[in-house]
Amino acid sequence: MDLKNSIRVIEGFPKKGISFKDVTTLLKDKEAFKYTVDRISSYLKNKNIDIVVGPEARGFLFGAPVAYAIDAGFVPVRKKGKLPCDTLKVTYSLEYGNDELEMHKDAIKPGQRVAIIDDLLATGGTTNSVAKLVEEAGGVIVTIGFVIELTDLKGREKLKNYDVNSLIQYNI
Amino acid sequence: MDLKNSIRVIEGFPKKGISFKDVTTLLKDKEAFKYTVDRISSYLKNKNIDIVVGPEARGFLFGAPVAYAIDAGFVPVRKKGKLPCDTLKVTYSLEYGNDELEMHKDAIKPGQRVAIIDDLLATGGTTNSVAKLVEEAGGVIVTIGFVIELTDLKGREKLKNYDVNSLIQYNI
Repeated sequence: MDLKNSIRVIEGFPKKGISFKDVTTLLKDKEAFKYTVDRISSYLKNKNIDIVVGPEARGFLFGAPVAYAIDAGFVPVRKKGKLPCDTLKVTYSLEYGNDELEMHKDAIKPGQRVAIIDDLLATGGTTNSVAKLVEEAGGVIVTIGFVIELTDLKGREKLKNYDVNSLIQYNI
Repeated sequence: MDLKNSIRVIEGFPKKGISFKDVTTLLKDKEAFKYTVDRISSYLKNKNIDIVVGPEARGFLFGAPVAYAIDAGFVPVRKKGKLPCDTLKVTYSLEYGNDELEMHKDAIKPGQRVAIIDDLLATGGTTNSVAKLVEEAGGVIVTIGFVIELTDLKGREKLKNYDVNSLIQYNI
């Protein structure tokens, strides 16, 4: 199955110059959605993953079903102020200013084997922040998986210490 | 399995007087997470559901794996400005002012059979808004499922035209 047929590309969203990859057309197509989750899961299945970690909000859409499919737990990384208990925090740069991601302090036990899953690898900034949170909690990052990779943005360079995989690639 | 053992209750989050039901402790526990998704899915399995609809962001955590488990597609309902194509919109009241939920206009085909899934039924305001979007698109709401129901808030009364189920109930 060529998953690119299930992705809708929208020019100029959320602003001029951005070629947005819309995964909602993939999600609503039951065959494409199942194929996507199964492809990611089959790569993870013999890696003894305890926990799948996914960042809010689109990371939940793929990370949670992958966790279910491989019999792992799921840990959400959320934007500031959304998690109710003590959190680890990481600040990351946006185009203008900074923002913060959080994960519960007790979400991952030291030594647990973790797969980070998200919909899209762009510059790698978000994923790098998620990786910091996982490692601060003592988790072992076994692999990082994306549905889509924007290769020209060279996010892999920021994640060069990890095993990184993506199902589909676009230049931009 | 008593799922209440997997829910963490936090008093005073996000503000005084609220007894917050934290599902992150359930999600990270692989047995509890699998049991939860399987319980919801087993109820849906012979109902010919085409599409599972879940609202941002915690609805994604349960809706997406349920969609995967029953071989359905998943449609996200999102907060204003997040979806890139033409949307249906619904305004709902918050404590102070209003907010808006959106769903892609082409997300559901007329006549498709829909299950709405979310983590928690409180007053039913969000779910009622999601139901409006689904019906405006021509979807048939077969059932609405929650992990948790806060029975004293009487959300069921707002959803009395639908088949509503929850796995665990709290008075408040």
